[in-house]
Amino acid sequence: MGKNIPAATVSRLPIYARALLALSSRDIFVASSEMIAAESQINAAQIRKDLSHIGGLGARGLGYEVPRLLAQINEELGLNRSWNVALVGYGKLGAALAEYKGFSERSFAIKAIYDADPVKVGQTVRGITIEDASLISTSLAGKDIDIAVLATPAETAQKAANALVAGGVRSILNFAPVALELPKGISLRNVDLSIELQVLSFYHNNRTNSAAGSDRKAELLDASNAYAER
Amino acid sequence: MGKNIPAATVSRLPIYARALLALSSRDIFVASSEMIAAESQINAAQIRKDLSHIGGLGARGLGYEVPRLLAQINEELGLNRSWNVALVGYGKLGAALAEYKGFSERSFAIKAIYDADPVKVGQTVRGITIEDASLISTSLAGKDIDIAVLATPAETAQKAANALVAGGVRSILNFAPVALELPKGISLRNVDLSIELQVLSFYHNNRTNSAAGSDRKAELLDASNAYAER
Repeated sequence: MGKNIPAATVSRLPIYARALLALSSRDIFVASSEMIAAESQINAAQIRKDLSHIGGLGARGLGYEVPRLLAQINEELGLNRSWNVALVGYGKLGAALAEYKGFSERSFAIKAIYDADPVKVGQTVRGITIEDASLISTSLAGKDIDIAVLATPAETAQKAANALVAGGVRSILNFAPVALELPKGISLRNVDLSIELQVLSFYHNNRTNSAAGSDRKAELLDASNAYAER
Repeated sequence: MGKNIPAATVSRLPIYARALLALSSRDIFVASSEMIAAESQINAAQIRKDLSHIGGLGARGLGYEVPRLLAQINEELGLNRSWNVALVGYGKLGAALAEYKGFSERSFAIKAIYDADPVKVGQTVRGITIEDASLISTSLAGKDIDIAVLATPAETAQKAANALVAGGVRSILNFAPVALELPKGISLRNVDLSIELQVLSFYHNNRTNSAAGSDRKAELLDASNAYAER
């Protein structure tokens, strides 16, 4: 299942899932690639190509069956089961992630929380007792954690990641602004919250430096929408 | 400046800047595209192609001068000036963003904070008094805000975005899990914190469904690293 899907296509599948969910919430049950394009900000040709990798179900001139395609993407993404997540770092960002609805709605369930602050250790958050970050590798035993979310300061992220790997975690989502070095075979995704802000400043800068107001310029700015051409 | 840079290349410039900063912090002042590739998880051919769009300074067989290339990318991204940012929504995520070092380090300065909660309105955060979100459009006058960051609940994001646009903001970074409808000419980037988690679950699912332990598999998992092939 999904073994031959290019990495770039995999990166876009969650975006298509979100677009299909939005269409579905407006009672649209059959959608052309153009309709998915308008919703996802990815161009229609790219969408057709990506969806062909998962055995694209679109019929020429008819479009895609929205619920069926959504179910298929969710299955490819493994969202038809639940995932046990460990959260490391319960600062402001960690606390925000713990209550982020986008996780629980997609069956990512936080099952363990770790922090280095003795004041936080022992506190209970949504039924989970915060544990001491220095005990991660032993504490993980028996918890059946699939994925860890790292929301520590940059300085302690590598140490926490090492402990997670020692405890058997093989998939890490890293929010700490630092490049982690991990052994082969560990899946790592980095989130840098400032990257999209820098993309916005590029377009803002470009607009400021140009004659404003032309239609051509407006088109260029629209192309800056999220996920375009990625 | 930068007018003909493809949108996909623009999306990768902040990633190159981060890689170059990391190299520079290890006292590496000349780097091949392969060294930037190892740091950024984007393949070397893509890097050379992207950098050629900004007048790539690499000399064949010599590599790129790290400080000069970094300065050039920062200039393209508009990071050689400071940007005034308005933050809308001071819940847990908003509070995390307000203290996120990745913003201030890149000269994004939060100059206004809005929230709908009367208890929060009037409180002072890092020298900024939280203002009533219902007064955004008038309050923005004279504040010279370049970019707004939306961290409201999904239900109120569209209303807040409309008020921002009415107040003259033309660039919005949206963290609310909702598709905003904005007039032409407004730059919008969406951040969905769950997308990378879904990409991880794809690879985890794929691994679970396959025979584990082969080298080929380890390679595939490495290809899941952030930003690869996007």
